[in-house]
Amino acid sequence: MDKPVLLTGAGGRVGQAILGHLGDRYHWRLLDREPLSSDKIPETVSDADVFVADVTDDYAVRNAIDGVGAVVHLAGDPRPEAPWDSVLRNNIDGTQTMLEEAANVGVEKFAFASSNHAVGAYETEDRTPQMYRTDDQFRLDGSELPRPGNLYGVSKAAGETLGRYYHDESGMSVVCVRIGNLTRGHPPRNYERGQAMWLSYRDCAHLFDRCLQADYEYEVVYGISDNDRKYYSIDRARDALGYDPQDNSADYHADGTPKEHIAE
Amino acid sequence: MDKPVLLTGAGGRVGQAILGHLGDRYHWRLLDREPLSSDKIPETVSDADVFVADVTDDYAVRNAIDGVGAVVHLAGDPRPEAPWDSVLRNNIDGTQTMLEEAANVGVEKFAFASSNHAVGAYETEDRTPQMYRTDDQFRLDGSELPRPGNLYGVSKAAGETLGRYYHDESGMSVVCVRIGNLTRGHPPRNYERGQAMWLSYRDCAHLFDRCLQADYEYEVVYGISDNDRKYYSIDRARDALGYDPQDNSADYHADGTPKEHIAE
Repeated sequence: MDKPVLLTGAGGRVGQAILGHLGDRYHWRLLDREPLSSDKIPETVSDADVFVADVTDDYAVRNAIDGVGAVVHLAGDPRPEAPWDSVLRNNIDGTQTMLEEAANVGVEKFAFASSNHAVGAYETEDRTPQMYRTDDQFRLDGSELPRPGNLYGVSKAAGETLGRYYHDESGMSVVCVRIGNLTRGHPPRNYERGQAMWLSYRDCAHLFDRCLQADYEYEVVYGISDNDRKYYSIDRARDALGYDPQDNSADYHADGTPKEHIAE
Repeated sequence: MDKPVLLTGAGGRVGQAILGHLGDRYHWRLLDREPLSSDKIPETVSDADVFVADVTDDYAVRNAIDGVGAVVHLAGDPRPEAPWDSVLRNNIDGTQTMLEEAANVGVEKFAFASSNHAVGAYETEDRTPQMYRTDDQFRLDGSELPRPGNLYGVSKAAGETLGRYYHDESGMSVVCVRIGNLTRGHPPRNYERGQAMWLSYRDCAHLFDRCLQADYEYEVVYGISDNDRKYYSIDRARDALGYDPQDNSADYHADGTPKEHIAE
């Protein structure tokens, strides 16, 4: 990707995981609703490439997206318990604005941060906690209909459908990454579900790197590390994007400490 | 259904098809954004059961929905070419308001008017016009991911996902009917696609009657007559709802005139 890559929600956790590993690999343009503190901006990013703007503001988005070759769209209300009015505006309307403006300027690739919450209600009482364990065979693979467990998840599913539409309409490559449980350093502690959908920082960065490098049309993939516990298939991410995760929550004890072969 | 049934968008075409056949079968409450002319209100409906309100106005919706046993939610911007701001507000936000208030008052059944436009982009150049013809085997059955051909279709797909969420959350039965091409009297003239997705007025009314009578959890079904030409399966509507359509666009000539066995 020779052209700049616009990263929205750059100050959030996913944005920081990406920039921490890929800060010098792309010509980044960073956009966030809040001014970014200097520790959140890679040294290679110039002040002119840092935008403070709301993704629902189409004039501001047009300014930031001009000349861009790809978009990694992470901005939105990240709270699973966020109220409807907020996800309607920030997540649904904001994603439509980004896709519309991206299509208008002929962006090649658009990676959208969807969420495990788009399918959270598949975790029914009769499936849990068995589905979080290594001997359970239940898998979601991205071809299933959304089944959100909250209105935040509804908003992410709507973003996926918007991505489908803009791909079909404009030919822009669109990938929706249903991000699992992103934590730095080690999997969530004493939390089977979080260990099943753990995504390490380096695997997260690698996955979005693949979203910027691979050739694809429209994809819905799961963003988790190669955990022994899993109920999300990563086959599609491997096949369509060349995702090759390095981490596995099984390499850590339940309390988050690494097992010996990892610690050394 | 002993309790009243709230019909939103009562003045529209689908609402009028339903009321024309089922006007005296339920205790209707009618809601529309515009005042309904008297010819659009069945004689059995009293003035107190007619509401002029916007479905995005939660106070007005609460007033209309109190004591209701079921909702048939048709209201929204019906234009396939409607701009984003309108479908975001009227279709997505409006459907969330209706589902939220329906769940709050313990409505048993909620039938949502989705649309063929939620899957319009499956009609790709290499599939058409063959897919509109009787010898073609391509079928959509409601289990496929949405693939809208316009932002109106995106809004309908979002309504379906909202329905999934509110069903899972509240236990309310929710059915999403992807309505085909509803025309009165005869199928669309000289229009293969419209003949393949024709829905007659009486089949439309019967289908929504089944949505109010059948026992189901969450369903996505196609609302078309039993046309020889079809690329939407009606198996799920038959199996889950007991839908038994009477009409078939093959009983009409391409110009809409009935073939002899129908005309007589």
